[in-house]
Amino acid sequence: MKMSDVIDDLRAALGNGAVLTGDDIGSKHRSDMSMTGRSLPKALIRPRDPAQVATALRICHAHRQAVVPQGGLTGLAGGANAGPGDIALSLDLLSGVEELDREAATLTVLAGTPLERAQMAAADAGFLLPLDLGSRGTAQVGGNLATNAGGNRVIRYGMARAQVLGLEVVLADGTILSSLNKMLKNNAGFDLKQLFIGSEGTLGIITRVVFRLKPLPRVTSTAFCALESFQAVLALLQKAERELGGPSAFEVMWPDFYRFVTEHKMTNARPFAEEHPFNVLIEHQGLDTENDPARFQGFLEAALEEGLLLDAMVAQNEKEAQAFWRVREGYALDTLPAIVNFDVSLAIGRIGAFVDECRSNLSKRWPGGRFFFYGHIGDSNLHITTCVDYRDGEDMHDVDEIVYRTVRDFAGSVSAEHGIGTLKRDYLGYSRTAEEIAVMRRIKTALDPQGILNPGKVI
Amino acid sequence: MKMSDVIDDLRAALGNGAVLTGDDIGSKHRSDMSMTGRSLPKALIRPRDPAQVATALRICHAHRQAVVPQGGLTGLAGGANAGPGDIALSLDLLSGVEELDREAATLTVLAGTPLERAQMAAADAGFLLPLDLGSRGTAQVGGNLATNAGGNRVIRYGMARAQVLGLEVVLADGTILSSLNKMLKNNAGFDLKQLFIGSEGTLGIITRVVFRLKPLPRVTSTAFCALESFQAVLALLQKAERELGGPSAFEVMWPDFYRFVTEHKMTNARPFAEEHPFNVLIEHQGLDTENDPARFQGFLEAALEEGLLLDAMVAQNEKEAQAFWRVREGYALDTLPAIVNFDVSLAIGRIGAFVDECRSNLSKRWPGGRFFFYGHIGDSNLHITTCVDYRDGEDMHDVDEIVYRTVRDFAGSVSAEHGIGTLKRDYLGYSRTAEEIAVMRRIKTALDPQGILNPGKVI
Repeated sequence: MKMSDVIDDLRAALGNGAVLTGDDIGSKHRSDMSMTGRSLPKALIRPRDPAQVATALRICHAHRQAVVPQGGLTGLAGGANAGPGDIALSLDLLSGVEELDREAATLTVLAGTPLERAQMAAADAGFLLPLDLGSRGTAQVGGNLATNAGGNRVIRYGMARAQVLGLEVVLADGTILSSLNKMLKNNAGFDLKQLFIGSEGTLGIITRVVFRLKPLPRVTSTAFCALESFQAVLALLQKAERELGGPSAFEVMWPDFYRFVTEHKMTNARPFAEEHPFNVLIEHQGLDTENDPARFQGFLEAALEEGLLLDAMVAQNEKEAQAFWRVREGYALDTLPAIVNFDVSLAIGRIGAFVDECRSNLSKRWPGGRFFFYGHIGDSNLHITTCVDYRDGEDMHDVDEIVYRTVRDFAGSVSAEHGIGTLKRDYLGYSRTAEEIAVMRRIKTALDPQGILNPGKVI
Repeated sequence: MKMSDVIDDLRAALGNGAVLTGDDIGSKHRSDMSMTGRSLPKALIRPRDPAQVATALRICHAHRQAVVPQGGLTGLAGGANAGPGDIALSLDLLSGVEELDREAATLTVLAGTPLERAQMAAADAGFLLPLDLGSRGTAQVGGNLATNAGGNRVIRYGMARAQVLGLEVVLADGTILSSLNKMLKNNAGFDLKQLFIGSEGTLGIITRVVFRLKPLPRVTSTAFCALESFQAVLALLQKAERELGGPSAFEVMWPDFYRFVTEHKMTNARPFAEEHPFNVLIEHQGLDTENDPARFQGFLEAALEEGLLLDAMVAQNEKEAQAFWRVREGYALDTLPAIVNFDVSLAIGRIGAFVDECRSNLSKRWPGGRFFFYGHIGDSNLHITTCVDYRDGEDMHDVDEIVYRTVRDFAGSVSAEHGIGTLKRDYLGYSRTAEEIAVMRRIKTALDPQGILNPGKVI
């Protein structure tokens, strides 16, 4: 008896149009935004609903066929890249808002819905979907959840995980696991959705999401601050937590970063002419249009008086606030050659010392290198961009080893928000113990015994 | 070769004083606060540190000996009750605050630490540990996390799960799994701590907890409100979310509850002389001592003008606020005979209709029964107390079946915050699908293949 072909079986079950091969597969399916994907998948499946996802996985499971889920392909860790023998499963057609429940303040969407579309559906009903990131127009909510996305306002609203009440997931064998809970409290058995959030498609494919919505903020205050020391940065953060009830963003920039970005013409903004040891962008979003701006102003004035701040500028309008954010976004860094970007996290109090040590370790090896430190420090999240003129026999991975070893020495995480994918897999052991990784493998085996789901990713 | 005795092995490894049997075991170890435990365990182990927990589990694992973890024994679902062949493992001696990190705003404590002691350690440093429940003096943080405790301020701060950054857990085979993370963002591999939170000791024994702390609130405003309809209750909740930035408590009482509790002398409070279709206790905690009380007052005045409220009383001092809370706590219900308490959750918008249906279903069977509805409605959490004069041939479980069937019909949860334990195990399938329960079993088998950890609980 001849074993049937997996692609034939998929075509028979899903229709020819849902199973693409060869040149019919768009080249975007080669790689996520890390641009490290090397090949097109063996086939691309485009299911139209969760039942078709289940059918597809049932067939692939029977054939022991590896499946790589693909959302908006905006990831930065290679987690959605398929090898030439893999089948990519695109969530593009599983798109749409299914329900907005005003009383429960929940939004139920299909996993392939672009984040921005979900945000707009919430806003149209007067709610905030707090999850937000630069790639909101392309990134899909299923991918956001599979990677437990972070983004701009984690300090106030938490990671993607914190914003989800329910999930529907298809397991490796095609079982549909429906946990579309809308309750804030539900202790009926294990909270299974937690397994799938942040496991990068290795345990199941998310098909539906129930988000918890928040009230839309009514007033945003933004300031750009100058400070003398990392101790002062920490004191300002603590003061903002205590007195403002928490900022919605607390972004720190070290001076090399500030200099390069504000000297570059594409930034077109330089809040302070002079340089300072530290710059902080602080943003507060509130509901009290009458009092919040004055409270924010008063908070900064008190911080100046206490000597926490060297200087501060409050944005007088949206345009000024956008200019402050353009500095922090630092897109000018992308113009540098051979850059490598890092996304690490550290206990907040240790970030200052970490930066000094990491810069010193990198400079010892590459005295002419340029190293830029910045990030969501209020979330314990530091970004690093390195720009090194590599010598013969060196490659870009050499910088990884130095950065991640320093992260390990400071008990930090090699991935704050971007995930592990393939690019950081070799360094997982720098942030997680052998026992932890062994438990991850046991969970993987329990849920996907044949290892067909996103093989070779994370663990 | 004679198989050694598990108790002898435990004594040899931990010392005689750490392994109690027979009358040396205090009678409190018979049952949690559900008072459904029938027997003393075969032995009680009292490890002094996480390494001893690991040693004890390694020995029990080798003997395939069932182990029941016991914290403060304040649970209400029978989850910590041991059978006569089980060994109970008490966390009582694993008590103490290990670190308060001001910069990271984290508190690291041993799992046997009473919640109130951890709260005080945070407060001494100017922080709030938001997790709070009535049994705070006795309940231990490890048990709070194992059951994903809810409590009084979930609407503002989330369940226990939301307040934890790191855990240390001992697995069934004695492996110490250390995930004592202090970062707000950490996407390095699966977030394993989520598995152990809320799994009621069936997957591992929590030995250390890293809490995320918040700023201490500076001003609390409390009001007792009267409303005409459940629609008005929902509208008031939404208005409070939008305009106050979320209340810290939103507690609803149906009229039977209000009447009985306020007529009972032990309550010693009756905010409104007349009865209303709904009463709501609303509390707001803020940081702006100057403006928050006036905002709260203005919010209520606007709600009165809009016709959302029939009446409202704002507590003028702490004593009045306590009187409002005494009504909501409703301890007078405990004086009734043959009561059964329920802790269910429902999508917030459906709670009004659920109450009507549930009362109708119960009254059909027991026309003379008394049924009291109240709870943390802002958290989707409803409590029910039934008082029925059971006839011959009936038992108290008959009321369970009617309540939980109605919960199932409304797609609710049979346990909002108390957990499943043994008491709700038969009803788990009313809130979770067969596929979900099968995945729970796969996870259980992956982490505890011999099934020695808290057997017979949850699943």
